Amino acid sequence: MISEFQFINHIKKRFSLDRVGDDCAVLPKNAEVDLLITADLLIEEIDFRIDWASPLQIGYKALSVSLSDIAAMGGTPASALLSVGVPQRLWNSGFPENLLVGWHELAAKFAVELIGGDISKSPGKLVLDSIVLGEVPKGKAVLRSGARPGHAIFVSGALGGASGGLGLLQASSPQDNPNGPEANLRARQLRPFPQVDLGKRLRELGIISSMIDVSDGLASDLKHICDASNVGSVLDAENIPIDPNLREVMRFDESLDAALNGGEDFELLFTISESNIPALADLPVTRIGSVTSHTGRLELIRNGTVESLVPSGFQHF
Amino acid sequence: MISEFQFINHIKKRFSLDRVGDDCAVLPKNAEVDLLITADLLIEEIDFRIDWASPLQIGYKALSVSLSDIAAMGGTPASALLSVGVPQRLWNSGFPENLLVGWHELAAKFAVELIGGDISKSPGKLVLDSIVLGEVPKGKAVLRSGARPGHAIFVSGALGGASGGLGLLQASSPQDNPNGPEANLRARQLRPFPQVDLGKRLRELGIISSMIDVSDGLASDLKHICDASNVGSVLDAENIPIDPNLREVMRFDESLDAALNGGEDFELLFTISESNIPALADLPVTRIGSVTSHTGRLELIRNGTVESLVPSGFQHF
Repeated sequence: MISEFQFINHIKKRFSLDRVGDDCAVLPKNAEVDLLITADLLIEEIDFRIDWASPLQIGYKALSVSLSDIAAMGGTPASALLSVGVPQRLWNSGFPENLLVGWHELAAKFAVELIGGDISKSPGKLVLDSIVLGEVPKGKAVLRSGARPGHAIFVSGALGGASGGLGLLQASSPQDNPNGPEANLRARQLRPFPQVDLGKRLRELGIISSMIDVSDGLASDLKHICDASNVGSVLDAENIPIDPNLREVMRFDESLDAALNGGEDFELLFTISESNIPALADLPVTRIGSVTSHTGRLELIRNGTVESLVPSGFQHF
Repeated sequence: MISEFQFINHIKKRFSLDRVGDDCAVLPKNAEVDLLITADLLIEEIDFRIDWASPLQIGYKALSVSLSDIAAMGGTPASALLSVGVPQRLWNSGFPENLLVGWHELAAKFAVELIGGDISKSPGKLVLDSIVLGEVPKGKAVLRSGARPGHAIFVSGALGGASGGLGLLQASSPQDNPNGPEANLRARQLRPFPQVDLGKRLRELGIISSMIDVSDGLASDLKHICDASNVGSVLDAENIPIDPNLREVMRFDESLDAALNGGEDFELLFTISESNIPALADLPVTRIGSVTSHTGRLELIRNGTVESLVPSGFQHF
């Protein structure tokens, strides 16, 4: 039996479901603007569980995931479609209504308009397909393919929190202090915020050579940049910004692993030439490594030694 | 327990999932062109069954359904996204690959390019979300809202065949003569062809006052036009073009019911002023009735008497 990872990559490659090799497809709109479009399929028990997440959180996250794809291209989201397959057990519960209330809560923050979609009954699980359209000035979408040897690698915010929150949910750990680290970690998993404003600001600088959002995990997403750019990379373990809440509940090596391989942090990972680094001075970003000429090879410097970094891929629960 | 029909209409109305009230959302693209976009969610055991339909047929139909929405606006399809949730039982069977082969077979006929989508595992049923983008000259999309009292109602092709094919599949009737009426009816259900060329030709005439595709059923879709246009309509039973294959396997009243209420024929239903009817002379369309001023009321003239026509809504199997 092939793994899910192998299966999905096989289908993606054979049928170009990610032909453009980027977070969004880019289509010419007019003389000034390109159109961005992305679709994200979220299925109950694969991408969320209704005993962990409220309908408000599920609707919010469905949109957040797609807005993060727009952010990773430096785009401005504009409109969206949402397809929902609802099992009969949820029809009368107010669940679908609350799901759309959660969706609209985030949509309002970015003035995203719901222009269509579909709704159907589902014989099994709750299913969402989130489609977002955005815009970017013509030719200015930040792709994955522009990283060059010698460029610096940066990431926004802190990593590993969403993965830590997932671990707490899986362990059914009790809901304690609503302001404690555990509650913050759960919120990273259940209510991720897309870095749309930062992505746009980075793109406007005009000096970002490649960008992606951290959805599969830092190592996996860095591999996507390396593959698209035909380069390698080396990360410095000491500089990887680990979610401070994670450090309160885990040992360092566990939290580093969560930061490297945990998915769904929805931070922005990007590269920039050394000479342009000063332009990032006021932004909430951290340098974590450098692009190398070792095509396809990821390395990690830990305790002064260089080790090979093998992306474990995003592990669904 | 509310019915599926009630549930879906409630959600649609409350959250504007069909805000535009048309087959596609219309977005301004540039000075010459508007963009059309539509999404259709298809779920195993609701919209198809894998013991009835081959993966080639399922992929083909998923695209066909969305192309029919583009056709109903008079648009030209251009590009598409496809999100697929695949249960593990189908990973190694060649099923997902064949599904995409079927999709591409139809896409090639209309030069539709696959630009993105998503693929995920599904814990239960096979799930497809088909998204198609199209174009139409600026302001020229044919809406549902332009029907006026006195306009004539036309439909393309013949109706009821897809519903008849569904009945045969549900009855597990034996596969007999591959050129017989039963085989033709099954093909109407499993391999529907979208009326893209006809929709475009009708739009180019510049005289179609409203249009929709027959996906829910003639009566239901006519109701959509009446609601959007704030009018009523009267149909003449004798003039409704019933699929000739259906007439070979059913009594007249059964086949008329299939033509009125069976879904998924994907023909085009439209209205036009009496004075413009001569422009339709060479087209495969039939006049079936007239628009009235009785807002929201559907009537059927049968055997010389007028009866009320109540759309039964598309009944999923």
